[in-house]
Amino acid sequence: MPRSINTIASAASGTGETTSGVKDDLSIQKYLSEKKQTVDQHLNDFLPSLHAHPELIHEAMRYSIFAGGKRIRPVLALATGEALEGDQEKLLYLACALEMIHTYSLIHDDLPAMDDDDYRRGQLSAHKKFGDGIAILAGDALLTQAFHLLIQIPQSSDIILSVIREICEAIGTTQGMLGGQVMDLTSQGKPCSRQKLQQIHAAKTGALLAASVSSAALLSGASQEHYAKLRAYGSDIGLAFQIVDDILDAEDPSGESTTTPGKDELHQKATYPSLYGLETSREMATQLVEKAIGQLDFLGSRGEILKGLGRFVSARRF
Amino acid sequence: MPRSINTIASAASGTGETTSGVKDDLSIQKYLSEKKQTVDQHLNDFLPSLHAHPELIHEAMRYSIFAGGKRIRPVLALATGEALEGDQEKLLYLACALEMIHTYSLIHDDLPAMDDDDYRRGQLSAHKKFGDGIAILAGDALLTQAFHLLIQIPQSSDIILSVIREICEAIGTTQGMLGGQVMDLTSQGKPCSRQKLQQIHAAKTGALLAASVSSAALLSGASQEHYAKLRAYGSDIGLAFQIVDDILDAEDPSGESTTTPGKDELHQKATYPSLYGLETSREMATQLVEKAIGQLDFLGSRGEILKGLGRFVSARRF
Repeated sequence: MPRSINTIASAASGTGETTSGVKDDLSIQKYLSEKKQTVDQHLNDFLPSLHAHPELIHEAMRYSIFAGGKRIRPVLALATGEALEGDQEKLLYLACALEMIHTYSLIHDDLPAMDDDDYRRGQLSAHKKFGDGIAILAGDALLTQAFHLLIQIPQSSDIILSVIREICEAIGTTQGMLGGQVMDLTSQGKPCSRQKLQQIHAAKTGALLAASVSSAALLSGASQEHYAKLRAYGSDIGLAFQIVDDILDAEDPSGESTTTPGKDELHQKATYPSLYGLETSREMATQLVEKAIGQLDFLGSRGEILKGLGRFVSARRF
Repeated sequence: MPRSINTIASAASGTGETTSGVKDDLSIQKYLSEKKQTVDQHLNDFLPSLHAHPELIHEAMRYSIFAGGKRIRPVLALATGEALEGDQEKLLYLACALEMIHTYSLIHDDLPAMDDDDYRRGQLSAHKKFGDGIAILAGDALLTQAFHLLIQIPQSSDIILSVIREICEAIGTTQGMLGGQVMDLTSQGKPCSRQKLQQIHAAKTGALLAASVSSAALLSGASQEHYAKLRAYGSDIGLAFQIVDDILDAEDPSGESTTTPGKDELHQKATYPSLYGLETSREMATQLVEKAIGQLDFLGSRGEILKGLGRFVSARRF
């Protein structure tokens, strides 16, 4: 049964009422939809043409980039920049680079040597469509293209370097996405503590989501104090996002899942519902979102979109 | 039968005499050996510690980085910088980043989905040692770490960005290494024209070798004219290097090969000897090196090491 916005938001808040109200959710949906369109147009411009030689790799890059997805990382970056009155044109470079990096991670994560997912967002995953070799190279190419895009941001070189540093750390091995993927890969089928689970999620999913906010803050010239608050917001939203992801996979494996349904159970992966139970997991997600939103008071009314996005992305599955 | 420096140099020049003389070769060997040691020390410093969590990925990164190899890309970068009287400390960041990128490409290239090589420089390739999943992630991590290193070069941000741009293009899909890997992967077992072969080699191997020279020139503040000459030198050396690689694989598959012996024939890969014959291939390599070296007159005596490296790396297999 397809889930409506309200039932999912209610499930996540655990109160029977949405936290932010139907109207908020609808305006956030509209915001997401408009921004997605803008981001997609720019992704199309920033990726090598389908006619550029060798065509196959560009076809594979575009196949995975345009396979769907709500562009939540780009939207978080754009909304953060807007809240700080940053320049949207500059932010779009960053936004698209973030989506390329996210897509690279999905392509590699779906490979048989990793999560072995044949489907991603209802269509064949890159390696099922193009073969493992081209899929590996398409992931590599999206990561490379992301850096190539970041250096072209029409912004001062010092700021660009600080943005690249933020992103490198978010996707690296010691605190970031790659470290999370390694922990995830090596922990399947083994007992997993709550601390370890949080560590995996914070690194694998949380770090890039947090960097989507914090790098946009850097790009928009946030003060150190505001940067720290936005970074904390991003981290909490990132973790809440993953908890809801786990909840939806456990509750309704045939429904909203973006990859092969029920894959967590299949891979004997520890999840929030498996370690804490569904109800506690829901409460944890809600508390994280409220904590995250509490960081944004300094933005006044300019923080409304980020607050709405926080509630929305943590209450739904993307 | 192991090859001596002289017999290889003679074979490559096709004259029965070394082009640069035994003494030159020996001093270049000494130069290479000293620089390799310096580069290795810095790679050790620049890579995450073996004790950093999660340890496995750092073990895999270090396993492949320290599997051997003459560090030809780093040495070309250092020698270019020295010829331009650039700062060696800054150049070492670049040199190590280039080696990380080269190693990432080898790890991914050796995977079963690509060249399927079980050995690299006489030891198990990364995926045979750590499994495909960790090998893919170790390659990703080295690429990411390379960018993280480049942004830390103690140099002006504008220059760092120009260096990153040079490298991104050298390893990208449209003119660089990834494009070459795609063409290589999709052309195996198919007829291959001479033009196509050169295109594959120029992209897959030549572009990063050329960028090792040209990015060091940028980092050392070369004028546009000198940059162009050094870039031309790097491109020709890169192609000559690959021709010699093909020659050695064809001549002596059990000898100097860095990967599984005779792999070109096994994979039905077009090579210079298969398309031009051995003798013509040798002449082509020699001519390319002489053309490359001809670009360096503007350096006067400061160009001697680069000239020697050109003759040496193109006449030997690394």
